[in-house]
Amino acid sequence: MKRIIGIDPGLLHTGWAIIEVAGSSRKYIASGVILPPTKMEFSQRLAYIFNGINELCEKFQPNECAIEIIFVNNNSKTTLLLGHARAAAITAVAVKEIPVFEYEPNKVKKALTGMGHADKDQIYKMLSILLPDAHPKTSDESDAIAIALTHSNTSRYV
Amino acid sequence: MKRIIGIDPGLLHTGWAIIEVAGSSRKYIASGVILPPTKMEFSQRLAYIFNGINELCEKFQPNECAIEIIFVNNNSKTTLLLGHARAAAITAVAVKEIPVFEYEPNKVKKALTGMGHADKDQIYKMLSILLPDAHPKTSDESDAIAIALTHSNTSRYV
Repeated sequence: MKRIIGIDPGLLHTGWAIIEVAGSSRKYIASGVILPPTKMEFSQRLAYIFNGINELCEKFQPNECAIEIIFVNNNSKTTLLLGHARAAAITAVAVKEIPVFEYEPNKVKKALTGMGHADKDQIYKMLSILLPDAHPKTSDESDAIAIALTHSNTSRYV
Repeated sequence: MKRIIGIDPGLLHTGWAIIEVAGSSRKYIASGVILPPTKMEFSQRLAYIFNGINELCEKFQPNECAIEIIFVNNNSKTTLLLGHARAAAITAVAVKEIPVFEYEPNKVKKALTGMGHADKDQIYKMLSILLPDAHPKTSDESDAIAIALTHSNTSRYV
């Protein structure tokens, strides 16, 4: 039995999810969103994400972490800021010596729906079938569940 | 009297410097380079940088931090990786509630030499005049000293 923490990072909201894996069974444990106060400045925002993920690791004791790979797109400045949020989250997991696994966004979509270009609704539908106990309220939360599930389906547990 | 930590981040080597500022005087305290083991994987590398900066903050108790702003250039993948190293360093300072000040590279060069496009040798020469006790062994180290000095010269101490 292992616990996976899935993270969908962002400077404004960082989705997270904990699932439990034993053989071919998957169990939803918890999920939520880390929301730094809106007026918080950049460096404190990174610390807030770090502290939030760090506390989750202490509370839920995940064995592995899954997070999406990001690419520089048309808005390179935004991607670079997102990269900072992502790094704060990865660092929080890595200081706990939890291994981090990275997946391309299309791989996540394909692992869950069979389609590399599935939309949010299709992902959400598959999540409700695979983990009926999960009721994500935002796309950050469902993306975090999706990446955790992807890792459980592509890793050695299966 | 205040202490400034200057950081020149990188996934391979992160330069750091501590200087002390009192009125118009500047004193070199220490500098060095954080070198994660070459075979260390990405997430552990971020944790290594975080832990390194964190320990420096505990040892030298800086009051403020100065770090360069980075921009996405032709090699956007490299910049994004550098952004992760930079975020790990910023997070380490921010969890200690030390304020972080960001400077554009050209501002650093201009603050020290009067020229926005000064080369490494010109920067190094000015450092040896301004802080004769500093003997940086690498450009990461001298860049970290340069950014700390820049902050001391452009901040409210002067």
